[in-house]
Order: sequence, then C-alpha cells, then structure tokens
Amino acid sequence: MFDFKYYTPTKVIFGRKTEDQVADLIKEFGGTKVLIHYGGGSVVRSGLLDRVKNTLDQAGIAYVELGGAVPNPHLGLVYEGIELCRKENVDFLLAVGGGSAIDSAKAIGYGLANEGDVWDFYDYKRQVKGAVPLGVILTIAATGSEMSDSSVITKEDGLVKRGYSSDYGRPKFAIMNPELTMTLPDYQTACGCTDIMMHTMERYFTNGGNMEITDALAEGLLRTVKKNAVILRDDPKNYDARAEVMWAGSLAHNGLTGCGNDGGDWMTHKLEHELGGLYDVAHGAGLAAIWGSWARYVYKNCLPRFKKFALNVMDVKDEGTDEEIALKGIEAMEDFYRSIKMPTNLRELGINAADEDLVTMAHKCAVGVGGEMGSAKVLNEQAMLDIFRMSM
Amino acid sequence: MFDFKYYTPTKVIFGRKTEDQVADLIKEFGGTKVLIHYGGGSVVRSGLLDRVKNTLDQAGIAYVELGGAVPNPHLGLVYEGIELCRKENVDFLLAVGGGSAIDSAKAIGYGLANEGDVWDFYDYKRQVKGAVPLGVILTIAATGSEMSDSSVITKEDGLVKRGYSSDYGRPKFAIMNPELTMTLPDYQTACGCTDIMMHTMERYFTNGGNMEITDALAEGLLRTVKKNAVILRDDPKNYDARAEVMWAGSLAHNGLTGCGNDGGDWMTHKLEHELGGLYDVAHGAGLAAIWGSWARYVYKNCLPRFKKFALNVMDVKDEGTDEEIALKGIEAMEDFYRSIKMPTNLRELGINAADEDLVTMAHKCAVGVGGEMGSAKVLNEQAMLDIFRMSM
Repeated sequence: MFDFKYYTPTKVIFGRKTEDQVADLIKEFGGTKVLIHYGGGSVVRSGLLDRVKNTLDQAGIAYVELGGAVPNPHLGLVYEGIELCRKENVDFLLAVGGGSAIDSAKAIGYGLANEGDVWDFYDYKRQVKGAVPLGVILTIAATGSEMSDSSVITKEDGLVKRGYSSDYGRPKFAIMNPELTMTLPDYQTACGCTDIMMHTMERYFTNGGNMEITDALAEGLLRTVKKNAVILRDDPKNYDARAEVMWAGSLAHNGLTGCGNDGGDWMTHKLEHELGGLYDVAHGAGLAAIWGSWARYVYKNCLPRFKKFALNVMDVKDEGTDEEIALKGIEAMEDFYRSIKMPTNLRELGINAADEDLVTMAHKCAVGVGGEMGSAKVLNEQAMLDIFRMSM
Repeated sequence: MFDFKYYTPTKVIFGRKTEDQVADLIKEFGGTKVLIHYGGGSVVRSGLLDRVKNTLDQAGIAYVELGGAVPNPHLGLVYEGIELCRKENVDFLLAVGGGSAIDSAKAIGYGLANEGDVWDFYDYKRQVKGAVPLGVILTIAATGSEMSDSSVITKEDGLVKRGYSSDYGRPKFAIMNPELTMTLPDYQTACGCTDIMMHTMERYFTNGGNMEITDALAEGLLRTVKKNAVILRDDPKNYDARAEVMWAGSLAHNGLTGCGNDGGDWMTHKLEHELGGLYDVAHGAGLAAIWGSWARYVYKNCLPRFKKFALNVMDVKDEGTDEEIALKGIEAMEDFYRSIKMPTNLRELGINAADEDLVTMAHKCAVGVGGEMGSAKVLNEQAMLDIFRMSM
C-alpha cells in the first residue's frame, strides 16, 4: 500500500433542476463577473444556455460568453478566452457542457491567474500557482473533469495534445442534473460509459500498492456503470440510470478509486491518445477498441488483478486456472463493449490503418511517455507496436 | 433517488510519517498562530505532541496548547479554548487526537468566528456563518469527524449532549498515519470499527431513495471493515489493516455512503445517545449493544434492504424467504460483534438497567428527536422503549 493524498474540494449539487442554483453558487464562491464557456450547439439548442443567462440576469451577475470548445480543446480558443476575460475583468469561469468546455475553462483559468504563456504548463515547463475560480454545469457524463485536477489541451501547430494536472484546476462547484444528459446520442452515451469505466480500470490494473477498500469501491463502481450502460442502451431517458452513470463519472476520476495504489497504468489512454491524434475517433470508442488487445498483451504480468476483475466485476465463475479466469474476464468485457455497440478493435472503429501508421503511432506514443510506461506491464515502443497490431 | 449535495473539501494526507508535513499544511491554509488541541495523555505519552511542537518550532509557527478534551467534549473546555485563542490571537486550530479533540476544536472554531454564545448553535437557535480554519492529526479511527461536518458537545449543566452540523466545520486538512492508531487498546479498536460500520449502516437501512452506486460503495466499505476488524483483533500492529480501517472511517461519515438516499435512519445512534447519557459506555460498544434489537424490531418494515445487507455484506446464502435471509443477516452481524468482543445486548455491555431507567431513556430519546424518528421504521416513544427492553 502506498501513501496517498486525497483532495476533492468540488461542491457537488446533484439532481433535477439543480442548474437553477447556479447564481447562488457563483456568489458563494465570490464571482461577480462571469465568463460562460461552452462547446457546440447542443447547449444552445436545448435552451440551457438561455436559462443560465436568465438566472444570472435575475441575480444581477454580469457575464460574457465564449462558445466553440471542441473535444481536446484548442489552445487558440484558450488564448481567446484569456484575452476576453482580461478585457472584461472576469473573476469567475462557468463551464457549461462536458469535458471539452471544462478543460478549456481550466486552461483559461490558469492563463488568467499566472503570468506568461499558458502553454508552458501543458509543455511541462512550469507549475501553476493559482487559477481563477471555476464552476461547472455538466451536460455529458464521461471525462470526470468536473471533479478532477486534470485537463487536456491541443496546440494546433503540430497537433500536440497534452494533459496537465493541478489541484488549482479542481472546480469550486459542479452542478449535475442527470436530465441534461438525456439528449446525448446513444453512441456518445456508450462512449461516456466506456470512458468512465476506463478511468477506474486504469487505476485498478496495477502491480503496486492496492488497498482492499479502494478495490471494493472500484469494483462496485464498475459493476454499476456496466449494468446501467445496458439500461441506457434500451432506455436512454431512464433518469435513475442516467444518475448512476453521471455520479460514477465523477467518482471514477476524482481520485477515490486510486487511493493507495501506485498511480495506475494509463497505457490504454496513452495508446488511444495517438489514435485520436491520427484519426477522428471518439475518445471512449478509441479506448474500447484498444483495451482488449492491451489486456491480452499484459494480463500474465498482472494476473491476480485480472483474476479479481473477472470474478468481482465480470461475474466469471471461479473455475479453472487463474489464466483461464483472467481471459474469461477480458472476453466478458469485450462482450460488454459489443453489447453497447462499442468497437473491440480498430477495424470496428472504422480504421483500416497501414502498418506504417501503426509504427508511427507506437513511436510517437513511446516518445510521449519518455520511452516506456505502464504498471500492469511496462511497455516499450515494440510492445506498443505489438498491441496496435493486435488491435487491427 | 433523492437529490443530494456532496462536499468534502478536506485535504487528506495519508500514510507513514505524514505528521511531519503538518507545518507546511498549516502554512498552506494561512495559519500563523496555532492552538494545538488534544485530549488525554496518550498523545503526550507517545511523544506525538512533542514531535508536532518540534515541527512547528522549526517552521517558525507560534502556538499555544489546550489539552483535556474528553469523549462528548464538554462545553466548559470549549469556552476555555475560545478565551485562550482570543487572548493569544490564534488564527488556526490543530486537533491532535480522535473525535473528542476534533469535535471540541470545531466548536472552538465556531465560537471564535461568530458572535454570541457558541452553545446557541448546538441548541439549534442559530446557524454559524464561518469558522476559524481547522486541521487534524488523527490518532483514532472511529468518528469520521476528520472529514465530516458534524460535532457533538456536552453541556455539563444537565448533561445535555447535542450534535451540530455545518460545512464550515469540515477540517481543511486531515493527516492520517495508520501507525498512530497502533497503540490503541483492543477494545477501543473494536469500538472504532463498530462506529465506522454504523455510520454507513445508518445511511444504508432506509426506505427512501437508494442509489445502486452508493449501495455498492457502502457494501464494499462494510465488507472491508468487517474483515479487517478481525485481522486487528489478532494482529493489532498490522499496518495494512489499520490503514483500511482508518480510511474507511473517513469515507463512512463524509457523506459518500449516503448520496441519493433520504438522509438515513440514525435511530441506533439516538438510542445509544441516551445510553451514553446515563451510563459510562464507549460509544461503539453502545451501538453494538443496541443494533441487534433495533434491527429485529424494524427489519420487516425495511425488508429489501435487510435482505441486500445479508447477501452482499454478511455473505448469507440466497436461500429461504426474504425474512429468513434478513434474520440470518442480523444474526451474522451479531456473531461478528461477538467475534471482535463487542456486546450484543445491554447486559453484555455491563448494564443491568431497571425498567424505570429504560422508561426514562425512551422518554428522553423521544423528546430529543421531537416525538418520533427513523427511516427503516419510524419509531415513537413506545417503540423506543420496546427496543430498550429487547436489548436487556
């Protein structure tokens, strides 16, 4: 068991119509002039943006707006946001949307509160020393950014995608109304469930420092999302299932399911990262397409964990050798992915990559992680290439 | 499923020798003059207090000391602390100990930051509007006060014991080194495990608004504490078991295991409360002595939950009627209490109460809860008396 820090200061307000409380929450955390930051048109089309603006108007809170956040949000928009906020003397950021809007707002908050180029933080050159406070109205259950310390930004020049983590980035509040996620396309809902489970699975498949209570929480979370993802496949407007998945999304990535371990494996994320760099794929679907190949490549090096996963999450019977049980668990997970229409290899993801593309991705991935990385099994460039080839 | 708020801003620093970080943490949260507040002699005898003072000395942080916090800490000591802090211009409180020192420090923090008599808050007359920041070095895993919003104070005049909850009371940081709990007497360790489990069981046995993920987390936590309480019975110096129980203690009472439900039942706590008022009993042991009688009295009114508890926490086989399964779960829990030398009735607790004492306790309990209370089953004064009589 490793020592750990656990810090989740975000005040979560969860339930129907909780977005009506946004003005009170902004005031509670000292906001007087707000940047409302959002992504595409769904927040506009659904009328949510207008309702938020009405609420702020009625509370006498001034605001400016900035839309256009995209998945892996672009640095250019971050710069634009920083400039707008400086000009307008914004002292509070409100992200309305999913991970894109939240991550972009985190970067804007770093840029406002720290001198110099905000990209320095994502380029691992400096650490932030503060951030403008951020609140969230969440509309997509997936990235967990509403409670997490992390954000991912893409620099357009060279398409450099980088993540940065700081406790200063943790939102002050997160308004979570499961009803706001009901209009998501089914594919995005399934991608979200995959992403949520993967955030906890990355922390689960390790060779260091596991705590029983962390495992119990992680397994319970995974079972809950697995069950409710199937319910949502058949009944997308099911409030309770939306709520289970939404709350699981926050808990899967706020640190709770990693307490006491070595920090996690994270290689499925790193491999998917390269996929997302070369092809236009949804993050969750990319993770599902890679995971099975990764798991088959590494499981013998992390057998007790894969066995435990098979028994306690996938309901595999405790019969046969440990290896057989572990493999059945991997197969059951792939069956689950298929059941919610997620891909289990690159072809099902719609990618027919030439081998030279796989070589390029493996090389970029290895460079990105500084040569080798992983906890279930440490992977070097050749191992990464092997997994990409297995996933075709 | 009910709407909920989840707010756990406490920064947890968990692991060996983490108390060495106390000065940095106090500085991080703006403390310049500290009250070190503790209970009895164990913190002194173990050398922990001297080590803490050395650390503050080396960091150039000034402090004053106040010992003497007792279980259900006394209002007189709270007044004394407030006066001392005002005189010494204290701007940060550091509780070193268990729930007694932490609860007492919370009350001191309320008294310092709010005008008028601090007892007003515990007497439900006013709400606090702030608190002096508080940090914790935890030495007993039990009450969960290190992350919770609640505190219990006893007014000596009439022995009035009252709890008060406010988010302002949540500690800024909690230093949790499992090694610091190793010198606890076995009985206190078992009492702590009982208290920890009960904090989650009070939230679990309800008739309203359960979430699957909350249940999964609660059941995982209960299984973990149950297993590790037995390990600690035989091997009190087992670091990993100490750590599992210590972290469970915080999670059991910070709100996580109640998200989405109706707030919980809490009648076992209320009944034990009266026991603690009349007799000198350890809180955890009192809870164990009452719980079985409470459970047998209410289970038919909350059958699905008692069945789920039996199957998922107590490993009862899914055979027979729901009532039979529920009863087997209650029996298994009582067997567990006995296995860690906890009482399962008042006589085993060492109390041979006259019936008139039971009548008095039931009456005081009913008055204290405003007539009737409970979620698994709403209990009135007669029901409370029936349960006390069953527990003899």
